[in-house]
Amino acid sequence: MAISKLSTGEAVRLAAREGSLVGVTSGLAPSFLQANLIVLPSRYAADFRLLCARNPVPCPLLAESSQIGSYDSLKSYIAGLKGDKIASDIDIRYDAPRYMVYQDGVLSASHVEDISAEWTEDHVAFLIGCSYSFETALINDKLSPRHSVMQRNVPMYRTNIPLCPAGVFTGATYVVSMRPYKRSDIERVRDITRPFVTTHGEPIAWGWDGMKSLGIPDISRPDWGDVPLEMDGQPLDSSNDDVVPVFWGCGVTPQEAVMRAGLKGIVLGHAPGHMILLDVKDEDVFSIH
Amino acid sequence: MAISKLSTGEAVRLAAREGSLVGVTSGLAPSFLQANLIVLPSRYAADFRLLCARNPVPCPLLAESSQIGSYDSLKSYIAGLKGDKIASDIDIRYDAPRYMVYQDGVLSASHVEDISAEWTEDHVAFLIGCSYSFETALINDKLSPRHSVMQRNVPMYRTNIPLCPAGVFTGATYVVSMRPYKRSDIERVRDITRPFVTTHGEPIAWGWDGMKSLGIPDISRPDWGDVPLEMDGQPLDSSNDDVVPVFWGCGVTPQEAVMRAGLKGIVLGHAPGHMILLDVKDEDVFSIH
Repeated sequence: MAISKLSTGEAVRLAAREGSLVGVTSGLAPSFLQANLIVLPSRYAADFRLLCARNPVPCPLLAESSQIGSYDSLKSYIAGLKGDKIASDIDIRYDAPRYMVYQDGVLSASHVEDISAEWTEDHVAFLIGCSYSFETALINDKLSPRHSVMQRNVPMYRTNIPLCPAGVFTGATYVVSMRPYKRSDIERVRDITRPFVTTHGEPIAWGWDGMKSLGIPDISRPDWGDVPLEMDGQPLDSSNDDVVPVFWGCGVTPQEAVMRAGLKGIVLGHAPGHMILLDVKDEDVFSIH
Repeated sequence: MAISKLSTGEAVRLAAREGSLVGVTSGLAPSFLQANLIVLPSRYAADFRLLCARNPVPCPLLAESSQIGSYDSLKSYIAGLKGDKIASDIDIRYDAPRYMVYQDGVLSASHVEDISAEWTEDHVAFLIGCSYSFETALINDKLSPRHSVMQRNVPMYRTNIPLCPAGVFTGATYVVSMRPYKRSDIERVRDITRPFVTTHGEPIAWGWDGMKSLGIPDISRPDWGDVPLEMDGQPLDSSNDDVVPVFWGCGVTPQEAVMRAGLKGIVLGHAPGHMILLDVKDEDVFSIH
């Protein structure tokens, strides 16, 4: 099936499972939730669950394995939605287009097609919300994120804002994504993204002062994603206070926290941009502005 | 009835309601949850709810008015517990021993006996978790907080760690409470307080480096509560790395956020230390370590 025909979350999962979808999932099956994947040895599961509960803005936990070792059924964290409504026909081992493998905290394999060889009966999978949902809402309200107009990746930055620690997960900090906006549009941007509580919600900081308060030294040097570029003749430069950076909590945060914790054993995740799609649509989870 | 006989949350509420209890509630009805109270005009309720949801460690929302204007029935935010189990016979207007009244963001009356004159049909009450619960657990495990041994108030500090903003609530930062511990006891202290998820849970920072990371300039100058004193010949001094400060999220945080937001109209709260007691016990909410 042509990738452009993949109009549901389930269709994208099945295409990834059979190997016909190998690229990033951005733009596929619009309005279906896309999720970050983190798979941990079970002894770290309680602490990770608590890390998400204590830091819901950067780490919005949507679902996890229904029990230790389950790769094909989910327990839901979305109020009023059971696990099989989040994704009925799912196989965590195959349904992301590409995966990363970490052994004792070190990347041991990158962009592998599946994790059937690495998955064990002791693994627990966690699905975390991603910001694609609110980007669609911004586009629909004529406030398209600049990176999507420029067909680039969203820039992401480490910050010095600490996560609330949870068990083995200490010392981690927020990762943020950045979309520049006119200062006069910021309140509308806040209003539009506020309802997306399971996918980071409204921004956590904005403006050049906001950038400084996050401890980001240079907007032109993101830690992940693409360098923000000019648009409409408006350079994204701190001497210009008309167009300013706006920062959201980012789903890379829990991955960073996992990497910092120096976990023993095999940890698995999706490759950047190669998300797992769900059966849930935006309107199932919250009312769009 | 003698105050020492007030052995349940309901007994404390009734004593406050009839005017026979006028002092702080610390130590009353051990193991019953005590709650911070914030009462807002209804137009701010949605944003405040979101502020708590985005910042659950310093702002653990336990319950709110069952509907706008309700002072005698609650809607629960504790999973598996209905509002009438949190407190069946409650009157928000009388059941804290003392209250504070703010008009357009300015304190207009302090330590008043009740708020029956100020309460309107447009007010919404919010009950927020408080750290008395985990202090009992620490005492039971022979890790008594120093301030309780010294019969002083816990020291509290403003930090530079931003809350995730929510609507009108922007620019606020975490307030933390501090209890000094031997460095060798910190992991036990973390383990004991971790299960108390509705009352701030495990510490958010510890050690002298932790103090600096929170932006606290001087441990001997708390913003609320009493100055921490020496005990066991161990001065709490940054040249001593054996006994170090340990910091928890603090229920003063949401009050600070409300004050910073410059809300219009009448805002009400409990007077510091004069909490509202609930019918819920620690063991109803979580398994004690």
